[in-house]
Amino acid sequence: MQSACIYLVGASTPMSRFWSPEVNNLTPYVPGEQPRQKLIKLNTNENPYPPAPGVQEALEGFDTASLRLYPDPTSQDLREALAREYNVTAKQVFVGNGSDEVLALAFMAFFKQALPLSMPEISYSFYPVYSNLYGIERHTVPLNESWHVDLDAFPDTNGGIIFANPNAPTGHAHPREAIRQLMTRQKDSVVLVDEAYVDFGAESSIPLIKEFPNILITGTFSKSRSLAGLRLGFAIGSEELIEGLTRVKDSFNSYPIDRLTSACAIASLNDKAYFQAQVNKVIKTREHTVAALQARSFDILPSHSNFIFARSRKVEGNTLYQSLREKGILVRHFSAPALDDFLRITIGTDEEMDKLIQAIDRIYIAS
Amino acid sequence: MQSACIYLVGASTPMSRFWSPEVNNLTPYVPGEQPRQKLIKLNTNENPYPPAPGVQEALEGFDTASLRLYPDPTSQDLREALAREYNVTAKQVFVGNGSDEVLALAFMAFFKQALPLSMPEISYSFYPVYSNLYGIERHTVPLNESWHVDLDAFPDTNGGIIFANPNAPTGHAHPREAIRQLMTRQKDSVVLVDEAYVDFGAESSIPLIKEFPNILITGTFSKSRSLAGLRLGFAIGSEELIEGLTRVKDSFNSYPIDRLTSACAIASLNDKAYFQAQVNKVIKTREHTVAALQARSFDILPSHSNFIFARSRKVEGNTLYQSLREKGILVRHFSAPALDDFLRITIGTDEEMDKLIQAIDRIYIAS
Repeated sequence: MQSACIYLVGASTPMSRFWSPEVNNLTPYVPGEQPRQKLIKLNTNENPYPPAPGVQEALEGFDTASLRLYPDPTSQDLREALAREYNVTAKQVFVGNGSDEVLALAFMAFFKQALPLSMPEISYSFYPVYSNLYGIERHTVPLNESWHVDLDAFPDTNGGIIFANPNAPTGHAHPREAIRQLMTRQKDSVVLVDEAYVDFGAESSIPLIKEFPNILITGTFSKSRSLAGLRLGFAIGSEELIEGLTRVKDSFNSYPIDRLTSACAIASLNDKAYFQAQVNKVIKTREHTVAALQARSFDILPSHSNFIFARSRKVEGNTLYQSLREKGILVRHFSAPALDDFLRITIGTDEEMDKLIQAIDRIYIAS
Repeated sequence: MQSACIYLVGASTPMSRFWSPEVNNLTPYVPGEQPRQKLIKLNTNENPYPPAPGVQEALEGFDTASLRLYPDPTSQDLREALAREYNVTAKQVFVGNGSDEVLALAFMAFFKQALPLSMPEISYSFYPVYSNLYGIERHTVPLNESWHVDLDAFPDTNGGIIFANPNAPTGHAHPREAIRQLMTRQKDSVVLVDEAYVDFGAESSIPLIKEFPNILITGTFSKSRSLAGLRLGFAIGSEELIEGLTRVKDSFNSYPIDRLTSACAIASLNDKAYFQAQVNKVIKTREHTVAALQARSFDILPSHSNFIFARSRKVEGNTLYQSLREKGILVRHFSAPALDDFLRITIGTDEEMDKLIQAIDRIYIAS
């Protein structure tokens, strides 16, 4: 039997009478491309360096026969390793299948409120997608004139606040003290600070969980730990918030963290020297790249992350994106009008960034 | 600052003003125990045999450096491997982080309807948990006098139907033709057949997707493929249903399947001979165990799965559960009144089942 999807006249979106009615109104998140061909991949903020050597050892020493058994549904060993890393208790730690899953569960656990959820107008574009999925009303706050998240613009009364710090795709991070000031006037709802990029030179707000029972910090192994392919994210907050997240998780999926992921993640946490060394390399390459692009008529927002948000004063955003792609270099271009002059460029190796600069020079000559 | 959870007088469940109001009403699923001490583990329907040898090889040959990159968000290679296995197209295949996640997303995608969702009164106990999470009204149908899912009792008008085939914890499976008869009168809503245990001697309804656009079959790598520790489940249905699931997944988590899971799962699918041999071993051990227990005053529901649901006419359920545990053998006991005479016993190796029988003999002598 043929699929019975109904295409509305003039619309490219199929609908189905078998779907829950709300599914017809979803606008799913579109992740950056994972190309099958060989490209210099500077489009999804992956780390150019391999994960810590201990990850390889963990895989080599892994007891494959143990895969026949379910993992620990509480991921106790992994949560304890994260607790040691961040100087908190295991009861203040939650883990999930990528920080995307942690965020999805946090929206269910905290943001289905009578009042709207506040978020920056420009931030991680998955936030409005989650809101739509759960029917959560949004209140958006413009960035300030420096393209920073405007913490003072968040209202005192809300159904929650979410923002990324450093923000994406702009790269700016507020210091912890600014977040603390925000928290002093946010007593009644959860403030979620998404720290996916914090390790590349920003200040973590994790210590604030000791003062504020309503701040939740999320993090990921995808960026600074070079483990995007493993899918592991976490949240740190008061026991009260972690218990709320856990109740939702245990109503959704008992065992989200598989045995291999847990073993690899613990191995990564155990090698602090490697972690710091390769984070420092990325930061150094970022500063070098910023200087090279500024010398080539680029405006670049100051970045505390492993990417830069940059616009050329010579070639417009989409043209530059396409020209770089033709030369085998993939960066991210957002078509939203406020952002379409810009490219978000992930920091790769020095060699990759040199190739980017050379490609830009050739594009400039040709244009 | 101390946790501000509020304990209601007389209730052991904390509540928090920071949680979404519905979170206070959740009753999370309680998975079977994963003990830290060494026990003969017959409580969570794991496979006693290791996964296919190709899984070990996949891990040994895995390029650890590739973990720095996100996985393919569409899991195309894995979905193609499943499509070949089940003689369908990749567009008819969905994958998720365990079949629990697949079920959780299917509830969102199909069962948030004006009419209640129909399900057997006794079946996988996660179904009512999902319903609570999403506020979906339930209509439950008693098992028939033989403890079978009563397909004729499902109403013609409903917001969806879900049941396990083979059912859990009872073990009985209907043949495909019975499911087809059900489908001929279910035209307006989705019928989800959870085939977690189908490989142990039951008949899959997957071929019915060619006739009915509204049947969805779910499966898992946790049981017959000995990969519970890997977390991989799947759904097979019409493109229309798979697209609905995908829209919800892409509004929840873009990359639920990590690179290691995908590589191990494909390796497992590639070894059909190993798969069939160890499934046959489990079936043979099951029949041997059934005979041994029947000779020891047990009533046993006929099983098409890798577990049996059995009650002793000599020792009541909870006492037998506790006595076995004291002897180092863990089985599953459900405290619901309709089930509390019974134990659900996973089929282990011949040696493990011999130890179970010996333990029962000793308990009988002592009682």
